[in-house]
Amino acid sequence: MNIATIGTSTITERFVDAIGKTNALTFAGAYSRTADKAEKLGAPRIFTDLKDLADDASIDVVYIASPNSLHFEQALFLMKHKKHIICEKPMFSTSVELAEAFKTADENNVFLFEAFRNLYTPNHDRLKGAIEKVGPVRHSFLQYMKYSSRYDNVLAGEEPNIFSPKFSGGALVDLGVYPISLAVSLFGKPEKISAHVTMLPTGVDGSGSVILDYGTHTCTTMFSKITDSYLPGEISGENGTIVIDHVAPISSIEFSSRLSGEKEQLAITEEENDMMYEAEAVALAIESNDRKMYQDYRNVSEIVLQITEEARKQNKIVFGAEAE
Amino acid sequence: MNIATIGTSTITERFVDAIGKTNALTFAGAYSRTADKAEKLGAPRIFTDLKDLADDASIDVVYIASPNSLHFEQALFLMKHKKHIICEKPMFSTSVELAEAFKTADENNVFLFEAFRNLYTPNHDRLKGAIEKVGPVRHSFLQYMKYSSRYDNVLAGEEPNIFSPKFSGGALVDLGVYPISLAVSLFGKPEKISAHVTMLPTGVDGSGSVILDYGTHTCTTMFSKITDSYLPGEISGENGTIVIDHVAPISSIEFSSRLSGEKEQLAITEEENDMMYEAEAVALAIESNDRKMYQDYRNVSEIVLQITEEARKQNKIVFGAEAE
Repeated sequence: MNIATIGTSTITERFVDAIGKTNALTFAGAYSRTADKAEKLGAPRIFTDLKDLADDASIDVVYIASPNSLHFEQALFLMKHKKHIICEKPMFSTSVELAEAFKTADENNVFLFEAFRNLYTPNHDRLKGAIEKVGPVRHSFLQYMKYSSRYDNVLAGEEPNIFSPKFSGGALVDLGVYPISLAVSLFGKPEKISAHVTMLPTGVDGSGSVILDYGTHTCTTMFSKITDSYLPGEISGENGTIVIDHVAPISSIEFSSRLSGEKEQLAITEEENDMMYEAEAVALAIESNDRKMYQDYRNVSEIVLQITEEARKQNKIVFGAEAE
Repeated sequence: MNIATIGTSTITERFVDAIGKTNALTFAGAYSRTADKAEKLGAPRIFTDLKDLADDASIDVVYIASPNSLHFEQALFLMKHKKHIICEKPMFSTSVELAEAFKTADENNVFLFEAFRNLYTPNHDRLKGAIEKVGPVRHSFLQYMKYSSRYDNVLAGEEPNIFSPKFSGGALVDLGVYPISLAVSLFGKPEKISAHVTMLPTGVDGSGSVILDYGTHTCTTMFSKITDSYLPGEISGENGTIVIDHVAPISSIEFSSRLSGEKEQLAITEEENDMMYEAEAVALAIESNDRKMYQDYRNVSEIVLQITEEARKQNKIVFGAEAE
């Protein structure tokens, strides 16, 4: 299958590299409003008009990594031209957009995947399979906190996209969705949530915590783009505890038995560019028309967006897409 | 000064050992309803009637480590007999009790200290002094999660004191107060909180999370008596991050500078029995009539109880002391 890309930042470069590591996808084109940026990606075809990309019958799939606030319009336009989509997280800004996009995907008989790269990896599946070892899960803790150099711009009084409500920015939707999507993938939809954030002068959050309440299990998530964390993740149950080094990528999964005191390493060594796994999984799902797999990832996207939307509501974070 | 003890469990044994390590206090008596239990502590005098202890003019201070639900009645009775009190955490079950107890302390010109052993240590003071290193604090994380062998009794259908609402039990007030009191000691009173717990069939929580929202800083706390955790604590700011090994005792305080990447160890090696520090600090405060120090610890006790009370309210945990 032929795939084209939208966006020219580092993440697109990584994705193009990932395409090269799969047998299922061929890098066939790149879109950017400015041709020279797209050319750097090394695509055989360069598109500077989205309509040309949409009209190109040789392109089967489009990877979207434009600024968050552009995802919706671009995905809808391309799906109406029968392109499958893999879209960077956070895929859309609101549940209304997400529902309309999935409806459009169905109507045009295409797939729409959110690029939660950490959910497509072998170690994700190993972690999911290992959870029964801890017995009834009572507590889990997942975080992604990394100081962003763009925060220096905020401190200088600017409003970079990633910290701008106009561009659906903030730590919650940028990094918070890593621990939250992992929790949803592992544990499903929480019964209720509480979210507290530190607001920036730009009108979005710089850091915060969201508790996902599963009734018999509390999952605590943390995220920040204005501080660094060295904390591992943890899933603790009555019979033992699993410690993971990080939510994305997961390189270590250590189970400690409470009863025997024994420790067991459950992770494998993954490919360094973990986007390879999502590229391959999505390509296979499209080729084999795997509706079950598609529905599973779609559920995660829907629940994650419900959570971030509720978290934003509790903290009065309003995106440009909603304010209009 | 002469000190007597109430209670005969492990924690009292530890406290008696701590008394022996200070010069300020002399272990003068032990109270228990059953004399043979008290005798094991090795006190010169044994009391089996609380009135005898109250009437003994040679006793200056009483350490209370009875079941939580008995603290209030015993402390009030003894303070009315002019005894200073150091009472195990959680000191009282409700803010109403706490207010009345502090009023009684003032009326009788005695001190009433809550035994938050982790707040009286040298490493607590070092941690507090080091916080400015991280710059504006944006996120902190503190936890105490330890599987209790008494939970086996709960699983067998019993209701041990520590998991009984009649005895003001549960993980929040038993272990949760360690991270919460440390947060309050370091950062003061939060603007608002959210609490989510896993309820046990006994009617109290087995584990949970409480977010303390300081507006420009989110502090996430976790606690459990039904699972184990291996997570360190963390205080992260814009300029760096402090990692502590545990909330009680604090044995390691490592500062990492975001800018230079350098790490610095700030903890000292403490006495193994860290109750020594609280015994000594309380004795000195009483001897020197240090109202400033007293007021600082009193504030912490008041705020911690407001937090746990609100957390219990949000989760419909009702103690016997309130239900009556």
